Amino acid sequence: MTSSSQHFSKTDIQNLDRIKRLNLINSITGIKPANLIGTISEAGIPNLAIFSSVIHLGSNPALIGFVMRPAGDVRRHSYENIQFNGTYTINHVHSSFIEQAHYTSAKFEGEVSEFDPCGLTEEYLADFPAPFVKESHLKLGMRFAQAIPIELNGTMLIIGEIEHLIVPTAAMDKDGQLNLMRADDVGISGLNCYYSLEKIGQFPYARVSGVPDFGKRK
Amino acid sequence: MTSSSQHFSKTDIQNLDRIKRLNLINSITGIKPANLIGTISEAGIPNLAIFSSVIHLGSNPALIGFVMRPAGDVRRHSYENIQFNGTYTINHVHSSFIEQAHYTSAKFEGEVSEFDPCGLTEEYLADFPAPFVKESHLKLGMRFAQAIPIELNGTMLIIGEIEHLIVPTAAMDKDGQLNLMRADDVGISGLNCYYSLEKIGQFPYARVSGVPDFGKRK
Repeated sequence: MTSSSQHFSKTDIQNLDRIKRLNLINSITGIKPANLIGTISEAGIPNLAIFSSVIHLGSNPALIGFVMRPAGDVRRHSYENIQFNGTYTINHVHSSFIEQAHYTSAKFEGEVSEFDPCGLTEEYLADFPAPFVKESHLKLGMRFAQAIPIELNGTMLIIGEIEHLIVPTAAMDKDGQLNLMRADDVGISGLNCYYSLEKIGQFPYARVSGVPDFGKRK
Repeated sequence: MTSSSQHFSKTDIQNLDRIKRLNLINSITGIKPANLIGTISEAGIPNLAIFSSVIHLGSNPALIGFVMRPAGDVRRHSYENIQFNGTYTINHVHSSFIEQAHYTSAKFEGEVSEFDPCGLTEEYLADFPAPFVKESHLKLGMRFAQAIPIELNGTMLIIGEIEHLIVPTAAMDKDGQLNLMRADDVGISGLNCYYSLEKIGQFPYARVSGVPDFGKRK
């Protein structure tokens, strides 16, 4: 890495070519989680879509959010389905099926399941209405709680509470911490780049008395 | 990875030991971005805190969000400072300073800068009031736009617009896509585990006509 860098002002960003701006601004928050969100329609048609915006909101109650584009977008089936029965699933994407997961974002015409054309398998667990992804080892059954409109750009923060959580025994340590490398999880950058994960550090809960003597970096 | 897995119901999660629940639920959304948020107080004291909740909300305007714990928490200095002058910085954490970044979460007493004790360096760019992190190659100067309360658990979604964006030339391709591996970015799992990133795939914008023939996975 050279020390050379580029500086974009707000105006520079506004003046970027649309595709370049989409790629750049979608990647500048850093790595994002890769999750497939599964729902089912009133007519019984399952829907599956990849999201990179799933976010932890709280542990007790166990609340998870994700950001959804304006209605009319390809993702609107997910929202209609969530409104219909109040449930959805969040399924981690593993390195073995990143391409299958990626293509769930294609705009399939009409009300058609993404599972079959994308080579992924529906799975129904514990009488939960929404479909899980069989290929995923780490999956959550979610109960819809609230949709918060973000008026600045017409997106919505969808919040739900975890009703079911399935985790691989080998990926969880005795303190409940998941090893995402052992789970074969991946991350997303921007709209279409996928990354594998390697654990490089784990530090204790940060107490002032335990802060190492870093000296002053120059 | 064996196929053995554990199933937690909502009640199981509620009944977990508090620390185990914190670790588990903080890691079940998958990999999270590692960012340091820099602010400055009315008295001119800089503040720096690590956040794993930074999230892309939109590209035009370029809106970024992050989730903040309830007031009274260690992070409240950041919020007071943002309210004071409307600016903050978001600085990517690289593998060379994960430990320094981690310890910004210690509850230093009184109004004291986290930069010095954590071995990180303040940097002021382009007359922007809030401090950037010199050790970070990829950084954003943010203008506060809106704080949306999440009443379900007393957290807040803080939204801002990018005013300045500094990216390493070598990490950005001609289409604006960042290579997070070349940028030496890291991800966070849970509260205290850090991961390096390796790019394993990049796929085209997903069109129905371009979906590969995956066959049906069994």
